[in-house]
Parts: sequence; structure tokens; C-alpha cells
Amino acid sequence: MQDLTLAANALRMLAVDAVQQANSGHPGMPMGMADLAAVLWSRHLRHNPADPAWPGRDRFVLSNGHGSMLLYGLLHLSGYDLPMTELKAFRQLHSKTPGHPEVGLTPGVETTTGPLGQGLANAVGMALAEQLLAAEFNTADQTLVDHRTFVFCGDGCLMEGISHEACSLAGTWGLGKLVVIYDDNGISIDGDVKGWFGDDTPARFEAYGWRVIRNVDGHDVDAIDAALKQATEDVGKPTLICARTVIGKGSPNKAGGHDVHGAPLGAAEVAAVREALNWTHPPFVVPGEARAPLDARERGAVAQHEWEARLSAHPRAAEFMRRVRGELPTDFATRCEAQLADTVAKAETIASRKASQNSINLLAPALPELLGGSADLAPSNLTQWTGCRSVEKAESGGNYLHYGVREFAMVAIQTGIALHGGFRPFAGTFLMFSEYARNGIRMAALMRSNSIYVFTHDSIGLGEDGPTHQPVEQLATLRLVPNLDVWRPGDAVETLAAWQTAVAHRHTPTCLVLSRQNLPHQARNPETVEAIKRGGYVLVGEDKTRPMQLVLIATGSELDLAVKAQRELAAQGVNARVVSLPSCHVFEQQDAAWRRAVLPPGVPRVAVEAGVTAGWRQYVGLEGAVVGIDSFGESAPAAALHAHFGLTVQAVVEAGLGCVGR
Amino acid sequence: MQDLTLAANALRMLAVDAVQQANSGHPGMPMGMADLAAVLWSRHLRHNPADPAWPGRDRFVLSNGHGSMLLYGLLHLSGYDLPMTELKAFRQLHSKTPGHPEVGLTPGVETTTGPLGQGLANAVGMALAEQLLAAEFNTADQTLVDHRTFVFCGDGCLMEGISHEACSLAGTWGLGKLVVIYDDNGISIDGDVKGWFGDDTPARFEAYGWRVIRNVDGHDVDAIDAALKQATEDVGKPTLICARTVIGKGSPNKAGGHDVHGAPLGAAEVAAVREALNWTHPPFVVPGEARAPLDARERGAVAQHEWEARLSAHPRAAEFMRRVRGELPTDFATRCEAQLADTVAKAETIASRKASQNSINLLAPALPELLGGSADLAPSNLTQWTGCRSVEKAESGGNYLHYGVREFAMVAIQTGIALHGGFRPFAGTFLMFSEYARNGIRMAALMRSNSIYVFTHDSIGLGEDGPTHQPVEQLATLRLVPNLDVWRPGDAVETLAAWQTAVAHRHTPTCLVLSRQNLPHQARNPETVEAIKRGGYVLVGEDKTRPMQLVLIATGSELDLAVKAQRELAAQGVNARVVSLPSCHVFEQQDAAWRRAVLPPGVPRVAVEAGVTAGWRQYVGLEGAVVGIDSFGESAPAAALHAHFGLTVQAVVEAGLGCVGR
Repeated sequence: MQDLTLAANALRMLAVDAVQQANSGHPGMPMGMADLAAVLWSRHLRHNPADPAWPGRDRFVLSNGHGSMLLYGLLHLSGYDLPMTELKAFRQLHSKTPGHPEVGLTPGVETTTGPLGQGLANAVGMALAEQLLAAEFNTADQTLVDHRTFVFCGDGCLMEGISHEACSLAGTWGLGKLVVIYDDNGISIDGDVKGWFGDDTPARFEAYGWRVIRNVDGHDVDAIDAALKQATEDVGKPTLICARTVIGKGSPNKAGGHDVHGAPLGAAEVAAVREALNWTHPPFVVPGEARAPLDARERGAVAQHEWEARLSAHPRAAEFMRRVRGELPTDFATRCEAQLADTVAKAETIASRKASQNSINLLAPALPELLGGSADLAPSNLTQWTGCRSVEKAESGGNYLHYGVREFAMVAIQTGIALHGGFRPFAGTFLMFSEYARNGIRMAALMRSNSIYVFTHDSIGLGEDGPTHQPVEQLATLRLVPNLDVWRPGDAVETLAAWQTAVAHRHTPTCLVLSRQNLPHQARNPETVEAIKRGGYVLVGEDKTRPMQLVLIATGSELDLAVKAQRELAAQGVNARVVSLPSCHVFEQQDAAWRRAVLPPGVPRVAVEAGVTAGWRQYVGLEGAVVGIDSFGESAPAAALHAHFGLTVQAVVEAGLGCVGR
Repeated sequence: MQDLTLAANALRMLAVDAVQQANSGHPGMPMGMADLAAVLWSRHLRHNPADPAWPGRDRFVLSNGHGSMLLYGLLHLSGYDLPMTELKAFRQLHSKTPGHPEVGLTPGVETTTGPLGQGLANAVGMALAEQLLAAEFNTADQTLVDHRTFVFCGDGCLMEGISHEACSLAGTWGLGKLVVIYDDNGISIDGDVKGWFGDDTPARFEAYGWRVIRNVDGHDVDAIDAALKQATEDVGKPTLICARTVIGKGSPNKAGGHDVHGAPLGAAEVAAVREALNWTHPPFVVPGEARAPLDARERGAVAQHEWEARLSAHPRAAEFMRRVRGELPTDFATRCEAQLADTVAKAETIASRKASQNSINLLAPALPELLGGSADLAPSNLTQWTGCRSVEKAESGGNYLHYGVREFAMVAIQTGIALHGGFRPFAGTFLMFSEYARNGIRMAALMRSNSIYVFTHDSIGLGEDGPTHQPVEQLATLRLVPNLDVWRPGDAVETLAAWQTAVAHRHTPTCLVLSRQNLPHQARNPETVEAIKRGGYVLVGEDKTRPMQLVLIATGSELDLAVKAQRELAAQGVNARVVSLPSCHVFEQQDAAWRRAVLPPGVPRVAVEAGVTAGWRQYVGLEGAVVGIDSFGESAPAAALHAHFGLTVQAVVEAGLGCVGR
């Protein structure tokens, strides 16, 4: 066996020197996990640095993402396109070595991590996707999908609640190819974790149905190697390797304490580390004998070549590659048009959650990559479709996931599924409980994931469940997340258009915000049907023979209020149009001409939405009016609430009259 | 012993009939937990219906809050001021019996529940507060604080990640008077939980250091009673009672399935339940023999009387009552003035997180009720003060909590502490990770809690940690939560004023949003110092001899940009003022005259803040300008980022010139 001491010390020194040069970063974790990393990456991880997108590669997730320099060192030494100049530019603007790993920016980085616990949940999604794809594409003769997911995580990840949610599911699903290496160094930022982390972690994971390999010396290469060998023998359970390490290992004066966690060591201690490790090379110089064990170029090319031979022999190779590339079927657009025409013709008055289920039923037959789910609200979110099959043990396949009451893990697992490739994940909960997953949604948007979220029960219109369940500010806050598309469709036709847009988006996650209660069908012509996909459009035009006096803007369940108010205003001699604005995100991406045509400058505007009003000032200005709700909801039947909170046709009419000075 | 069958069946029938009458609600849980409730409330819970605020009462938390009718039935039958007319108005507007229990609305309801898992975390906070208050006020002779916290929870609560966070802490803290009764009915909304909840829950809780009482028949009164007796023998560990129950017990055709969970049974099945339970009374009629075991009025009055005798003998009775009533020391306002004057005089250029720590150091000596903490970021959030003492085992007391990396539980535990009374809790994390606790913050606002959140590292100004850690939309989204005060102070003086306001607020939680980087001291006169507490004020006035042309609005780290831009604009002949707007929430509560004086209508406005721009349209309108950031951040030193994202004096000057048509 190769001696890995040099490789591990190279990883340590790259981290120490890069953090010192940046005067910012986290040396403690890379120094502590360097031996684990060297063994895993040299002897167990199957990957090809020349093709970071190779579908057959093992996935590696650095859930404790603050240790990013460990990953950059590994990628550099393995042979990825990450030259030493990038390591020297650690944490500098426009480098490929940001403070925390970012997928899409750095070749070989599988997911963006830093917010603790989420990488672990992403990895559960990746391992799940591998098993489901294997169940779908492997045959008795041909094993096309067969790779592992390895995770590094620390105490922080395991304290976070999302670790409970994700690891419980991993156990239930029996993800036998998921291997988590726990950096049990006993230190977090506040100091020795004993005062705030008293869990018997091995026992906890056994309670989730995991195999636990205890008490591995994280600095003993043979012990690590033996643990990884055991972990990669599939017993139908995920594996946790509990590796005892010393944070900052190699730092004579700082190892083992929390000072080494998140700050440069300082010039004197960097010199002391060099001496302690007997490392004679200057910063950012790594000799060939330290590089050799990690260099994966040759063995990676061989492995990929062998896999590609299997792929070309596979009867469904083209479909497999379409799936993992995330490409839509070629007839997708044509099918969408037909679906939309049918839905217009049906003219149904139904809840948009029901319209969403109808949309899924239309889309699913031609989109085998759809992988649905809900956080224990399938009968309420209406996320199941005709013929969908629930996943039980992942190796048996399926396309519907019962996430249980675990919103945060659901969202982060979806992101992992999307990152893995092969599926278009969607899943539901109540709009209110999107808040349990809030940072997971943001991370999906940051990663340019294509997840779809089905958020039903979108306002006080849900009625009796009361203020704990009635969204008021949630829509407005989701709209503020960069690269997140939020749709609140006003009827069944807009709901289908929203679904089609969400599926077509490849690099933007979408929230579909849907009603519990029925919404009337709105009349449209072919132009207005087509215009839905612009995000905002004129649903009901003003009287063109007279000057327009007012624009009414509405979304979702309030669209019908605006339509009715427009009629009432016309009867009172006020010439108004109704703009439906189901997606501000998509509308803002339209050209200025479209936006000006829909919302002509200088015409007073009234917005109506069953939620907080402040966000609508960007459309109505200081002079316009907003009919909405700026307090918490109440428990009562929906009709009583709409009257109580003034979400009525009459209120919209009055606001409109006020805006035109009547 | 009394026969509790009638009492339990009374609870069942009240739930069944109220849900049926409302045509909305959750009968399954009340029917399943009725026997557990009857035993706990008749034989173990110490409470006095005549005084729901009695500090010596046991706390009861219904974490599975959808079973609200069980609690309303218990309160009614125990003798609280909740007459049958209220039960008949279940889930109707303005009733005291909303869909989910709401603290402050219904006498005897200890916390607002419904969003799963959070009630359990609230209860951990209550049990912690009891222990800490006991450590502070009990003496060798006098046991003033000595009560228990009982919790009902279901599968949903235990699937949620927050249950992991909160219960791990409860074990570490050794909360021996916390008793959780787990309704192990095997059913959630999607059906039999086996497919998505495979945990060995007893083993999991033993891994947290809990005592677990397994396999209790939740319909056997003697078994329940024995388990509760065992649970109330304090062994320095929290107790989980795993009670096997049948959801919807008593419903001949629906018990044991998920249909009984969240919908009325229907008239036929209601009749079948009546027959099965041999319940001959009409809806909302409960005979005296069913009421008797639960009627707690007499024994409650005796218990409170006995406790009050101990209170009056206590040497610090007045201070104890001040603390539990949440009243500030009488000299608080005087001290605040002196602190503010000193801080003005110091004129320090420091980070607002450091100014926050200085503020805590000023406030803490006269506020023994301060109970601080952080989610493992004490050295970064700067939440510790001179002489604070870390809590280890709760029974040993302390006033600083190391929550570990558990933001959601931290926030919900704080709410529980605040609800319990005796403390003013505050705790910190990075502003970004407020998102992990998002719904917990909302629940605190809904409950009118007085929690204080110290959210540091508030913008791209944190630098190299990159987009995963750099808030962009977080400030704007927090400002949209009803009854949540968000302060982003611009220097040390505003930071202290924000802290003082936060402490003075008794019914509104406060987010203190603070910088990592240094902020220059701003010059003020006595009026502008006083004006800070108005939330928004003129920091730098325009040239009064000429017409005002422009208002520059800024918060936090961007305040100094606005001040410098104002000077530059003056040099270019543009007459502008600078408005500091550290709290929109407080500013909006000022009278119209103040608001108009600060932001005179008709004068163009520019807002500058290192975050998303849309929210500022409510202040600058469609014609004004916003200097901000509408994309994710980047990893780089702060100075490079401010230049990259255009957060510069020059950008503010240009925006100002644009607004005045130059």
C-alpha cells in the first residue's frame, strides 16, 4: 500500500497556507480530516477528474463546507481543472475557490455547502436518486447505475434538526450505498461540545436503522481503510463511520482547541506546523510523491471507459442520457399546447391545488423523470397522480416519496436528487411550512436547481385552521429570494401554464402557490392563454374607446375579485383593466415593451392579494392602493374571514374609486 | 380511585360534536389521547382554573395542536373560564376556541401550537426556565419554584428536525421535570407511518439521555397512571412515555385509520360513536359524574393557597413577582438615559455586533432576568458578557445558554422561556441562519413573545464566507412578519438604543441585525439621540435656507455611505437630508406628523441598504431610487464586494443626482 502521510500533509499545508494567505478561512477541519480524505480519495472514491459530469462517478459531499480548502486541495491533487493559481486565490473575487464550496463554479464540487446539515440531506437525495435510477435502468444483465455517495460531516451537521429528518429517511429507505464519515473531534465554535451535545450519536443512528462503525481512529490509515472497506459492503443500510480526530491536527500549539477552527493560524504557527510535519516545501508547492496517491486521472479514465462500454450496450442508453442531462422529451412543447387547449375547453371551477393535480396527471405520462412527494400531506397537497408508485425501500424503485413530516429535509433531499440527475423532483407541503425549509429553498435557488415546490393552502382562504396555518407574508418573502420563481395561478388554466413553465425551467426552482378553495375559471382568448407564460398580462382589457383610468393587479384567488370589481367599476363609469400577475419573477424578465404595455406608466394602480401589502408598492407606487392583509389571520370559515379582512369585491371597487379621485 | 371512563368519553364526545358542528377539525387525536388526558389532568397536573397565571402551576403543552378540542374540553371540564358556548363556537370568528390553541386568547392555553414540533421545543424552554428559576430563588429552607412541564406530542412532532434539536438539549441540560407523552398511534396523514417513520424512537431518546417508559397502553388507566407516577420521580433526566393508542378510539368504523385524523366523522359515524361509547347525552351536554374527576377548582385553589403562603414568606417575594410578571426594574428608564449619554460620549467606531456586546454589558447588571445564548457562535455573535455564567446541568443554574448548532430549537426554546416567565431571553446566530428558525420567529411574533434575537453578520460586509452566509433578502423578509420589530442600527449609539427598545417591548419580539465589520460613529445632538427611539429620524439635516431637493434613507452599515453622499451632493449643489431608519416597524407606529416631518411628501428619495431593493419601494415609490443588491453575494474581502456590487458613496451620489434630474 502507498504511504499516504505525504498526501495528507500536502492537504494540510495547502489549507494552512491558503487560509493564511487569504487571512480568512477554516484550517482546523482540513487538518483534522486530511487522513480520512487521503484514504477515501486515493483508495475508495471512483471518479474521473477529466469529466466531473460522468454519471457513473461516486458522489462526494463536504457537508461541513467551511472546510472547503480540504476539498479544493483534493480536487487539485486528484487532477481536476483547478490549478494552483486558483488555490492561491482562495476566497478572492472571481476565483473558483470561494469560502464555501459552490456547485457549478468549481469542477468536482457536487453541491454547495456551508449552512450546516444540508449537505448531508443533499447526499441522502443523491444516494436515493442512485437507487431509484438503478431500479429503473439496471437489468438482470446490465448494471449501469452503481455508485456510492460519500459524505464528510461534523458535529454541527449532526446537531442540526435536518440531520434527524434526512438520516431517519435514509434508514427507512435503506440507502445501502450512502457512507457518512463523522468527524468526531469534540470541538465546535463555543468550545468542547460536551456542554451542548451529549448525544450518544452511534446509538442514535442505530435507532434510525443505520450500520454504525464506531471508534475509528481518524488518523490511522489502516483503521480508516478497514472501516471504508466494511462500509462499502452493501447490507441495505446506510453507514455511519464515527472517526475520532483531532481538530487542527499538525498544529503544535493550536490542535485540539476551537481557536484552530475558523481563523488563520498566524505566521508563527504556520512555521511551527511546517516544522512539526517536516514539510520543507514553500507554500503552494507540492512534490510529486505527495501528489501521486491522489492523482485519479488514469484510474478515473479507465473506470469511465469501462462504464461507457456498458452504457453503449444498454438498450435505453439514449433515454438514460436524456434523463441524466435533464433534457425534456422532444415533443414536450407540442404536448403542452394540447394540454393547455384541453384545459381551457374544460373551463373548470376547481381549487388550484386540484388543478395542480390535474396538471401532474397531464404531464406525468410523457415525463418519466417526474419524482413526486409530500411532507405527509399527500391528500391535502394533491401531489399524487394516477399510477404513481410509492417508494418504500429505495432499491425497489418508485416515483412518489412519502417524506413524512420533514419539510426541511424534503427540500434539501430534492436538491440532492436534482444535482444527481435523472429526475425532476417536486414535492409539497402547506405554504406556511415552506418556512421550515426556508434556507433549503434558498440554497436550491443559489445552486440553480430545478426543483418544483407545491405549496398549497396559500392564504386565509384555507379557513378554520387559523393563523398558525394561514400564510400572510410568505408569498411576499419568497418573491424576494433571487433566482426563485414564484407562481400564484388564478385558475386551472394558469395552474397548468405554471406547471409547464416550472418543468421547462432548468436552472430555477419554482414555487407553485395554490389555493385550498375553489377558484372560478376565467375567460381568455388565444392571446391571453399564450400570454400567461409571460408571468403578467392583461386578462380583462379596458374599454379601448375611452382613456384608461385604472389598472387592477391581482394574483391567485384574488384574481376573480379583480375581475368582478372591474365590471362594477365599469358600471360606475371607471375604465379599468385587470392584469393577472401570477409570476412577478417571469414578468420582470420580459422586455420593457411588454412590461410597459401591461402596466402603462402614469395610470393609477390597485393591487389585490390576500397577503401583506408592502411588497406591492413596487407595482403601485406610493400613490396606488393595495388591498391585502397586514396582520395575522384568524380561525373561522373562509367566507367569514374574507369579509372580516376586507378582501371583497367592494373593497377593491372602493380602493379603485379612491385612486381615481372618486 | 375514580372511574375515568366517563370523563374520557366526555372529552371524546366534545371533540366529535364540536368538529361535526364546525364541519372542520381533527377528531382523531382527541379520541385517541382522551384516556391519557383524563389520567394526567385528574391525578397529576397541578393547576388552578381560577388563576391560569399562577406561577406555581404545572405547564401543559399540546404540541400536536391540531387536537385542540381535547385541550378545550379539558379546560372546560376542569373549570377554566371557557363556557360551553365557546366550545359550541369551535373554529368560528372571535371565539376562544380557534382551530389550533392560541396562548393569550384562551385561559389555560400555555402556548400556541399547530406547526409541528415547536410545542415540544417551547416545553423544553418552560422546563428549563423552571429549573433556572428554582436554582435562583429556591433556598435550603424554601422551595418556591417546583412544578412540572407535561407535553402531548405525536408522530409528526417527532419526525420534525426541531424535536431532535430540542430533545438533545433537554437531555444535556438534564430537565428532570419534563414529561413528554408520545401518542404512538402509528398513523399520520399519508397513512401507516411505517413507510416513512422507521425510527426506534425509544432508543433514539435514550441516546439523548432521556428516561424512556416503553409500551404503555394508552387506553389502560392504571398503566397510564403508573407510567406518570414513575415519570414524576425526578432522576435528573427528562422522561418520554411511549403510549400506544388507537387514533379515533371510540369510532366503530374509522378508528385506527387516517380518515379520522382531520375531518368530521359525519352524522352517521357520530351516532355510531355515541352508541359505541354508550353516551346518551346530546351534543355539548356533560353530566356531573363525567365532570367531577377533572374539576380542578377546589384542589387548585388549595394548591395555590399553599404556594402563596410560601411566596409571602420568601425574602425576595417582590423581586420574584416582578420577574415572573415581566416588569422592568423601576430605575430602568433612568439607567437607559445614562447609558446612552456615555455611549454618545465614547463616540466609538466599532462593529455593531461589538456595540451589541457593550450594550449587554451595560444592561445586564440591572437586569438579572437576562438569559443569553447563541447557536454555537458566541465568539462571533458576541452574546456573552462580563460575569455571565454558562448553563450546564439546568439544576445548577446559570444565565448563558450554549444552544449548539440548533437555531430552530433555540428560537422555540426562547419562546418557551418567555412564556414561562421570569426571564428576558435573547440569543444569537448569523442573520442568514435566522432562516433555519424562520417559523419559530413567526410563532414568537404571533404569540406576542418578548424574545430578542441577535442576528450578526448582516450583509455582504461579512466578506469571504460568500453567498451561503451573506444575507441579501433576509432583512426585507423579516420586516414583513407582523408584530416583529427589526432593528438594523447604524452605529454604537443606535445599537444601544435598539437594545433598550427591545428590552422595553413586552409584547413584540425584536431582531437586532448587526454588522461584522466596523461602523463609524455618527455625530448627533440631544434631539437626534432621543429621536432614535422613533425608529426613523433625520440624522443629517438639509440646508434649511434653501428648498430640500432629496432625502437619502439608509440603515446599518450603509448609513455612513448616505452621510458621505449627502456631503458630496451638497458640494455639487444638491440640498439633501439623511434619514436613518433603523426600525421601520417602530417608525410606522409613530404619528403621521412625525412620519411626514421625517419623510416629507413630494421630495424625491433614495434608499440605500446592502440587500434586495423591492421592499424599499414602499418608501421611495416608483420614482425614487434604491441602491442595493438583487442577486446572491460572492466570496471576497468586504471592500472588494462593496465595490463589485456598487455599494459606494459614488453610487449613492449618482442615484441622488438621477432623482433630482441631474
